[in-house]
Amino acid sequence: MEFFFKPKGIAIIGASANSTKGGHVILNNVMKSFNGDVYPVNPRYSDINGKKCYSSVLQVPDPVDLAIIFVPAAFVPAVLQECAQRGIRGAMIESGGFAESGEQGKQLQESIIAIHKETGIRVWGPNCMGLVDAVEGLVFSFMFPAVWETGLDPGNVSLVVQSGMLSAGFLIDIMTHGIMGISKACSIGNKADVDECDILEYLIDDADTGVIGLYLESIPNGRRFVGLCRRAEKPIVVLRGGKSQKGAEAALSHTASLAGDGALISGALAQVGVVEAHDFKQMMDLCRTLADYPEVALNDNRRIAVLTMSGAAGIVSSDFMEEHDLAVAELSAGTTKALTEIFPGWMPVANPVDLWPAVELHGAEKAYIKAFEAVCHDPEVDAVLIHSFVGGSTSLSEMSNLMEMAGRAAKPTFGWVMGKRKDVHGLQVQAKELGLPVFGELYRAVECMAAVLSRNKLPDHGDSGISLTETTGAEENLNKLLMDARGTLDEYRSKRILRLCNFPVVEEKIISSVREAKEIAGEFGFPVVLKGLLAGEIHKTELGLVRTDISAVEDVESTLFELQKIMSGKGSLLIQKQVQGYPELIAGLIRDPQFGPCVMCGFGGIFTEIFVDRVFAVAPINRDEALALIKRLKTQKLLDGFRGFAAVDRDVLADILVRIGQLGLAYPQIKEIDVNPLIVRNGLPVAVDAAIIVD
Amino acid sequence: MEFFFKPKGIAIIGASANSTKGGHVILNNVMKSFNGDVYPVNPRYSDINGKKCYSSVLQVPDPVDLAIIFVPAAFVPAVLQECAQRGIRGAMIESGGFAESGEQGKQLQESIIAIHKETGIRVWGPNCMGLVDAVEGLVFSFMFPAVWETGLDPGNVSLVVQSGMLSAGFLIDIMTHGIMGISKACSIGNKADVDECDILEYLIDDADTGVIGLYLESIPNGRRFVGLCRRAEKPIVVLRGGKSQKGAEAALSHTASLAGDGALISGALAQVGVVEAHDFKQMMDLCRTLADYPEVALNDNRRIAVLTMSGAAGIVSSDFMEEHDLAVAELSAGTTKALTEIFPGWMPVANPVDLWPAVELHGAEKAYIKAFEAVCHDPEVDAVLIHSFVGGSTSLSEMSNLMEMAGRAAKPTFGWVMGKRKDVHGLQVQAKELGLPVFGELYRAVECMAAVLSRNKLPDHGDSGISLTETTGAEENLNKLLMDARGTLDEYRSKRILRLCNFPVVEEKIISSVREAKEIAGEFGFPVVLKGLLAGEIHKTELGLVRTDISAVEDVESTLFELQKIMSGKGSLLIQKQVQGYPELIAGLIRDPQFGPCVMCGFGGIFTEIFVDRVFAVAPINRDEALALIKRLKTQKLLDGFRGFAAVDRDVLADILVRIGQLGLAYPQIKEIDVNPLIVRNGLPVAVDAAIIVD
Repeated sequence: MEFFFKPKGIAIIGASANSTKGGHVILNNVMKSFNGDVYPVNPRYSDINGKKCYSSVLQVPDPVDLAIIFVPAAFVPAVLQECAQRGIRGAMIESGGFAESGEQGKQLQESIIAIHKETGIRVWGPNCMGLVDAVEGLVFSFMFPAVWETGLDPGNVSLVVQSGMLSAGFLIDIMTHGIMGISKACSIGNKADVDECDILEYLIDDADTGVIGLYLESIPNGRRFVGLCRRAEKPIVVLRGGKSQKGAEAALSHTASLAGDGALISGALAQVGVVEAHDFKQMMDLCRTLADYPEVALNDNRRIAVLTMSGAAGIVSSDFMEEHDLAVAELSAGTTKALTEIFPGWMPVANPVDLWPAVELHGAEKAYIKAFEAVCHDPEVDAVLIHSFVGGSTSLSEMSNLMEMAGRAAKPTFGWVMGKRKDVHGLQVQAKELGLPVFGELYRAVECMAAVLSRNKLPDHGDSGISLTETTGAEENLNKLLMDARGTLDEYRSKRILRLCNFPVVEEKIISSVREAKEIAGEFGFPVVLKGLLAGEIHKTELGLVRTDISAVEDVESTLFELQKIMSGKGSLLIQKQVQGYPELIAGLIRDPQFGPCVMCGFGGIFTEIFVDRVFAVAPINRDEALALIKRLKTQKLLDGFRGFAAVDRDVLADILVRIGQLGLAYPQIKEIDVNPLIVRNGLPVAVDAAIIVD
Repeated sequence: MEFFFKPKGIAIIGASANSTKGGHVILNNVMKSFNGDVYPVNPRYSDINGKKCYSSVLQVPDPVDLAIIFVPAAFVPAVLQECAQRGIRGAMIESGGFAESGEQGKQLQESIIAIHKETGIRVWGPNCMGLVDAVEGLVFSFMFPAVWETGLDPGNVSLVVQSGMLSAGFLIDIMTHGIMGISKACSIGNKADVDECDILEYLIDDADTGVIGLYLESIPNGRRFVGLCRRAEKPIVVLRGGKSQKGAEAALSHTASLAGDGALISGALAQVGVVEAHDFKQMMDLCRTLADYPEVALNDNRRIAVLTMSGAAGIVSSDFMEEHDLAVAELSAGTTKALTEIFPGWMPVANPVDLWPAVELHGAEKAYIKAFEAVCHDPEVDAVLIHSFVGGSTSLSEMSNLMEMAGRAAKPTFGWVMGKRKDVHGLQVQAKELGLPVFGELYRAVECMAAVLSRNKLPDHGDSGISLTETTGAEENLNKLLMDARGTLDEYRSKRILRLCNFPVVEEKIISSVREAKEIAGEFGFPVVLKGLLAGEIHKTELGLVRTDISAVEDVESTLFELQKIMSGKGSLLIQKQVQGYPELIAGLIRDPQFGPCVMCGFGGIFTEIFVDRVFAVAPINRDEALALIKRLKTQKLLDGFRGFAAVDRDVLADILVRIGQLGLAYPQIKEIDVNPLIVRNGLPVAVDAAIIVD
């Protein structure tokens, strides 16, 4: 990928002398920003503004390893073929009119992909705005010079966006606001070849990149993506477009992207520590905050001291903090004492610390600095949120001194500022230079603070140390059971497979006579369950083939007769010990087209169709990852011993999830595993019904 | 209240010659801003900057109807007494050191209240920043002149805030941003006498006020508050501080406010159409948006056309719109045709309308204006969201022309803009003048758009037309049952009361013998339920006094013996027909200290302790209001016939809720009604268990 970011020479194919054309703007931008050789290519000109123009890329001399292509879509395949022929290693196709624009465009994009595959030339785009590198000062894009005329604002946030506008209009927004420095902004468009994974891989090792922010409408190579995120030690922020039905439809027409399963993608991203953004500017605020505080938290403490000049803002901050699982720090005695010294006598010290009375006594600067010193040295405080006000009674310079101090402090500090528009912006810009994120919206400040403090070390991804089968002959049996299986396996067969993988499974037996059924019922103890199994039938309950609460021997016989009647001699009969417990869980495996085999865990039962609480992780996962997965369920309360039920044994549940992932990886023919319900009896989950679908 | 807002003459008690003191600033502000007579009062001066100063308010000549008091807290009661003696009608006490600052302060505040009650003088504050009226140009506050030195920005949004900072620092923020005009900003502090209700009542009839925004840490007179909101035809936006536990604690120390029951307050506010804000600037954005579009929507249609230059922003807008129950409009044929004309041939027309290719062909102005015209005339479109970009390729003036057009359009139009910081702000300011809300954050734009389009006409609050009791003698019986009742009534007695109020109640009977029980069981049909009732005992289940699923005559006898054993001869025995159905609801009455009798409705069962879904309304409510209340339950799906269960008969449920409210209003001794469960059987709710608590 080096030739895209650090090319030796660039051919601009479609360079134009007409200053209103993109081909002119690209040439201009590249000539202004790139120190190496630049070669305009356009058969219509012999020179452009005095610079020699080549009629074909084949004529371009060495060194040239990158071509930027901006010709009508229909001409792109021929031009690309020539680039490959000329030995150019990468082509950035910025023209539109491909997969995003109907059948003809789709075919053109297919031709491009074919050329890439045939010749090995890497293709960036089409339908994109290429690359801007603010650190190196490179603009390989048709964005208007006005976008960067005031100078690029270098920093360490790199962006990967699947949107032209975001890489142009948004860059000008970011740069004129001056509160977030950019390293590389990569507009990748339709991703015919080079995709977010290729760029991500490059950026992970890029010394100029500290934080990576991505806007994506699809993650087709989800498995590779999460692998890269896991490897990255840099914070990664992702904004996904197309989470709603209408949004997904629009994404399909925008960049021909298939949005995929939202909950599964969110799960995969959370698994590898990706921060999810939900709006554009919020994404930038998350990125710049994480650029200031890129380290993961060493512990789970998130105790915040809030310094404010407004009781109301302190209260609302507390409300927001609770929402984000941040604690209002209990200040230690030393801090309380130090604060008492600056407060008037009647003033009780409490966190949030309302500094207004102290400001009245000592002025804003002294009051804030004393208070900040005190809370910063407090071992009960992990981070500080400062509310400040500039303009009017409090000057920008007073607050600047505070910010300078905060920038040197050992504890992460976040600012919220209101007041005079000019001064608010001035303070934000100053604070940025000091490595301090300052926000204009209070909620945003708390949200970004939470993003920093919630970034914990990922569980180690090492081997689980669990072998899928443990007993002698189990693996062989498993192979046999799965070898000629096709379609939806009945629950007995599905659970035999699970049992071979050391799953806790309900006691059950296929029965061949009423006598046997009565005997087994006696062994299991009442109540028992009787089920009729028909090959491929998944609507057992609806057909009346599931009979629970059978409490007496005489009911066994009558129920069996009823089942046999429904089944008219087909299928087989199953007797089960009836498992009673709480909660009802579900677990399973989904083979996602984008993320491959993924483990799922959630709550079952009728209510959960409405209050859906399910989590996902890309397989394989080890025990620690499975425990982390379980912790991501929203309804932790139900797992911790609700209403007198025993707490769920998380280790046992984790083991089950690890094995589900292993089973999916070991047998690619397994399309889906669905354990439902997985009933928790005295804290231990037991698979009561299951279906394995084999392709 | 007129004397606070339009005084004839003002005494400034505590006026100071020392320019660093609040007493000086107030005097200065009032003298600069107020055209009537101003009288400084301070025994230490004979004049202040040449203006005659009085040693006591008793010396102040006519006309004087308002006093602004800024003396140390300890002196306030004496000064206030003198004001009353002098015949002054209102006192604005801006000093702090009262209920917010410990025991002594609380006592001082009590003295103030006593003087108000004794003399009738109205008291605004203490611990507040008084009033700023940007339309009349009045500043009755110690805010520093810098706050308004650049001029007040008149508009029609009035603010009522329980926070000094919000009425000072925030005002400067609002005014220097220049995108929201202010009418009156009222800082009401500790609300010793004048509270949000008094101000709200005034503002509802104030011709200069179009929208009212309130920041509140408590609503002690909740009943009056909702009554006023119902009467107001103006949009009202409320931001509540102290929703979290820590936030509520901080509110108690800030303005001695008791936050109250959050879900109940939210319910009461929703009932009367109040828009709830969650952050300060977001509240202002909601206010300014509603100031531009104060009319309630005439229908439920919320179909939006999105014009954008960024496919990505269109997609993310769709995602946000789904979140806010707004629809992506299906454009009609005429609109599609008009758009096709400006698009390149390959471009399919879809909403969100990505105008970029049209902008490339025709320039931004023409493309936007043509597209805006088309969607505005589309009968399938109710509102328009325009994404714009300023700076770079698109100039501010091009976008300004579009905004001017949008300002005149018949359909509500909302803007999101990004680009050059200066131009973004410029466009927002211009759009404000045109009556068009434009936002810098996309989510905020959609949120504010949703607030406008979700404001429907409130259901009529007229009499329900339902009489609480219908049968002869029922009212007499009801009076008798409630006359000497005390404490928690047992379920039989509670349900007798409900039955007299025409509640659907489970079939049940107190039994005196095993023989009778068997007879009744035969009448009811099996299964039946047997319960042991002990006076005042509310933990029946835990004591083993509830026996369900009794399916045979022989079990009636054995169960009765078991119950009698537990009860050791005390209490009574109840037999019930067992009601089976879905869902399980709960309904009830809560007598809230702030909002009085409130009706509650929600989902019951074990899961709902975790997934709480309950709604509240201040009683009385009529049938339409009850239906609206039911519609506010989050889980509508469970009511509409889930999993083959019949849909809940909403009219019957509404009737029940109306009657619960009536019962609470008719009998003030009823402290609480708790119907749990209210099981829905074949669509009809039946009260299966109930407890009425009487004081």
